[in-house]
Amino acid sequence: MPGSVQSIERAAAILRLLAQGSGRLGLSEIANSLGLARGTAHGILRTLQLVGFVEQDDATGKYQLGAALLHLGTSYLDVNELRSRAINWADALAARSGEAVRIGTHLQGKVLVVHHVFRPDDSLQTLDVGVLLPMHATALGKVLLAYDANAAAAVQDGELEQFTRRTIRTAKEMGRALAGVRDCGWAADVDEIGMGEAGVAAPIRGYGGLVVGAMGISGAAERICDAPGRPRPDLVGYVRDAARAVSRDLGASRW
Amino acid sequence: MPGSVQSIERAAAILRLLAQGSGRLGLSEIANSLGLARGTAHGILRTLQLVGFVEQDDATGKYQLGAALLHLGTSYLDVNELRSRAINWADALAARSGEAVRIGTHLQGKVLVVHHVFRPDDSLQTLDVGVLLPMHATALGKVLLAYDANAAAAVQDGELEQFTRRTIRTAKEMGRALAGVRDCGWAADVDEIGMGEAGVAAPIRGYGGLVVGAMGISGAAERICDAPGRPRPDLVGYVRDAARAVSRDLGASRW
Repeated sequence: MPGSVQSIERAAAILRLLAQGSGRLGLSEIANSLGLARGTAHGILRTLQLVGFVEQDDATGKYQLGAALLHLGTSYLDVNELRSRAINWADALAARSGEAVRIGTHLQGKVLVVHHVFRPDDSLQTLDVGVLLPMHATALGKVLLAYDANAAAAVQDGELEQFTRRTIRTAKEMGRALAGVRDCGWAADVDEIGMGEAGVAAPIRGYGGLVVGAMGISGAAERICDAPGRPRPDLVGYVRDAARAVSRDLGASRW
Repeated sequence: MPGSVQSIERAAAILRLLAQGSGRLGLSEIANSLGLARGTAHGILRTLQLVGFVEQDDATGKYQLGAALLHLGTSYLDVNELRSRAINWADALAARSGEAVRIGTHLQGKVLVVHHVFRPDDSLQTLDVGVLLPMHATALGKVLLAYDANAAAAVQDGELEQFTRRTIRTAKEMGRALAGVRDCGWAADVDEIGMGEAGVAAPIRGYGGLVVGAMGISGAAERICDAPGRPRPDLVGYVRDAARAVSRDLGASRW
């Protein structure tokens, strides 16, 4: 049934479009962005509205994502084995390191944060669960790029957005960085996603040793590093131990 | 285009099915539950997998919700005006009342929690955002039933699940309770969703006075009530003030 496939693909493309930018788009903007006839786009939107995946603003007539997606998204978390196995280890890593802990998995060329433990102090922090991070500028992303072929393929031809002057700029630099990650078994980012921000991450392996995610800490570079660009060895050790513990729980016996 | 509508509706039904129960289902279970031919269900599942809305477990071949839904779900929160307008007021209400605060909106006959502020102490609490609560057994739900015609219509013929011996049991009881809510402008639940648990909620109105959600506190009945079944008047006042403040921010000038 190629017909049904196409309409579901188009529906998904509309939802992805609405998840970007301001989040509110008119019918013409949606149809134009996706190269669809207005009538086609309208039929899909009407159905998405019917099932609660899209809402239409009464005043402006613009479309936005619907409430049913929130429930589906959190239901995804409930069955996510990576997250459920990792929760206790993530809490322990946050306590040992004194830093925020995040667990990420690959989604469409980005790192999807599936779990986030706040830094154990009383500072104001916002929950990153569901957020998409750039692969090339985060330790979590570098781990996924180094070990996950799908992740690497997804960013192969994409442009590398520059967040700071330290962000990886070229495919060559990237290749060198990823070889380094594979050599030592962990990744770091220092001043790459934002000046003064740093992270350390290690791979989480599932059954058979396949890398299914990455686990890491992130925070102020002055706390995470003990020399310019160099994360503290004790913190690197904590991160690797925690990622290995989760991997063992997921059935990766060798790690 | 009735064809595209149908396949999207079926895709949504599959996603809703996967969001229930254990969260992992085989092809036959899915096809049987929805009365679809195996080939039809398989075509839809393959497409949902392609767009990241569904994942298939390599070992068992079972399907579960996919990671792309998590990002769409949290993107919904980002554009949700009810939530963004209410965040500061919810924090203030939690501080004043000393109780957990939740904001809910109607979704398919249930209360969808779109925001949750933890009770301001160091107790262990789990985030309810994205959770669906029963309408008839929670103060948030009663407010939505009393003022939101769509919500009331969605539960009209449904069975009223009994959580405790105090849960509302019949349509007649429900009618009386909702008339009471409309009379006084707020709702309570005491020992109805769980023994020893209580909640108070008030309506959030949008532009033109339409009820778009509910805001309330919930916690131990011995803290929230000062007599059996009766919430403390000071807490009711705090909840109503907060809901009114959000309503004003949303453009409901009269409230």
